[in-house]
Amino acid sequence: MPFQAVFALDELKRRVLADPDLAADAMVQAALAGDLAKLLAGEHFDGLMQVLALTHAGMTVEEFRDAVEIWLASAKHPRFDRPYPQLTYQPMQELLGYLQAHGFKNFIVSGGGADFMRVWVERVYGIPPEQVVGSTARTRFELRDSGPVLIKTIDYLFVNDKVGKPVGIHQFIGRRPTVCCGNSDGDQAMLQYTTINNPRLSLGLIVHHTDGEREYAYDANPKSTGKLIEALKEAPDRGWLVVDMKQDWNTVFRPE
Amino acid sequence: MPFQAVFALDELKRRVLADPDLAADAMVQAALAGDLAKLLAGEHFDGLMQVLALTHAGMTVEEFRDAVEIWLASAKHPRFDRPYPQLTYQPMQELLGYLQAHGFKNFIVSGGGADFMRVWVERVYGIPPEQVVGSTARTRFELRDSGPVLIKTIDYLFVNDKVGKPVGIHQFIGRRPTVCCGNSDGDQAMLQYTTINNPRLSLGLIVHHTDGEREYAYDANPKSTGKLIEALKEAPDRGWLVVDMKQDWNTVFRPE
Repeated sequence: MPFQAVFALDELKRRVLADPDLAADAMVQAALAGDLAKLLAGEHFDGLMQVLALTHAGMTVEEFRDAVEIWLASAKHPRFDRPYPQLTYQPMQELLGYLQAHGFKNFIVSGGGADFMRVWVERVYGIPPEQVVGSTARTRFELRDSGPVLIKTIDYLFVNDKVGKPVGIHQFIGRRPTVCCGNSDGDQAMLQYTTINNPRLSLGLIVHHTDGEREYAYDANPKSTGKLIEALKEAPDRGWLVVDMKQDWNTVFRPE
Repeated sequence: MPFQAVFALDELKRRVLADPDLAADAMVQAALAGDLAKLLAGEHFDGLMQVLALTHAGMTVEEFRDAVEIWLASAKHPRFDRPYPQLTYQPMQELLGYLQAHGFKNFIVSGGGADFMRVWVERVYGIPPEQVVGSTARTRFELRDSGPVLIKTIDYLFVNDKVGKPVGIHQFIGRRPTVCCGNSDGDQAMLQYTTINNPRLSLGLIVHHTDGEREYAYDANPKSTGKLIEALKEAPDRGWLVVDMKQDWNTVFRPE
């Protein structure tokens, strides 16, 4: 399950404890029961939006950051029994370091929320907040007696995934990437945008999750998100480098 | 008149020459006649949106960039008889250089369109595209036979002005500024966001246009945009530094 979805569920549980009336809500029940189909029903994903509104809106950006920090301090990945930010790939960390040492500016371009990722991405990857491109919604500025605040909302939600990724890259960065690394069909449009007709030399790279022992093995059939079918099919024609985790990586996770 | 409005008008004239039917349109006529009241009438500024759609949408981001470059190569400021990007303030260029030399990362946060500014901001200020925060709308990704393109639209328009500035700063940069320089009430919320209750030391600075001889003298009564009343009133209480162009600047424009 994406790491931010675990956060949202844990937050929802915390909210229900504080406000038991919430437990009567049908969509809250669906979320707590893991009924993704119900949350995604309808043209506007009303259930998912309601859960997002409860867990990601209505607070200041600092209050949200604090909630993420509190969660990060205690949450552990159930299988690997380590805090989530420790589960980064050693070879990708090395690639980020190599690129940075050679004059590249590294960005993270993820479907996750920018406000969620910016809390830990600098500590974990050495990438500062302004180089994080993620899903966003508009905040609302208020000058209170206590000072200026930005209140999180879910208005103008921008989902930084699939064709949204090149759109987000253009909006936030304003130029075409030179190197693009992905691991799912959600990265396909971004790989196309990086490598097809780019006036500069470019590299597209796909990490293929083939190692069920050390990590996971899936492509067409992930347990939750992360399907990798179309991008893998397109890779040979486009010259995208496919990295086989099991064959190619000596180490998967960064050592503790 | 804001420099981008001159571009939009010149583009509109070029479009009308290419497609004379456009000249019959009431809003195109209002724009060409400078009838701002008509363009801004109605709850959704329909006239302005129509002009924006004609001049800033419906083309790829590269086509738009080329149109801006062509315009920049020939347009000159009517009073100063110099290309617009040459009309930058020497003292502000020095401040940018000073901050950068001391480990700051400089951003431009303007009401102008990000796609418009990114064409020339790096050449003129040494600030790369990803450090330009401006007004934006969402592009649309298409994979054409000729390759991937991003088409400009006016959907989800975000106006990076007034309370939009701290909102844009949070969305694009993700942290609070340390130094904020402005010159109009459009910068007031950004100055508040930078200096009130900032856990770090901070500086707010307002450039007051007081020099009618070398540049312009206005605050409450600018010829078009740029009113400076409320921010100036607030400056003493907040400790914002007000720079008096006439008194404080030896040089106004960067020498040719």
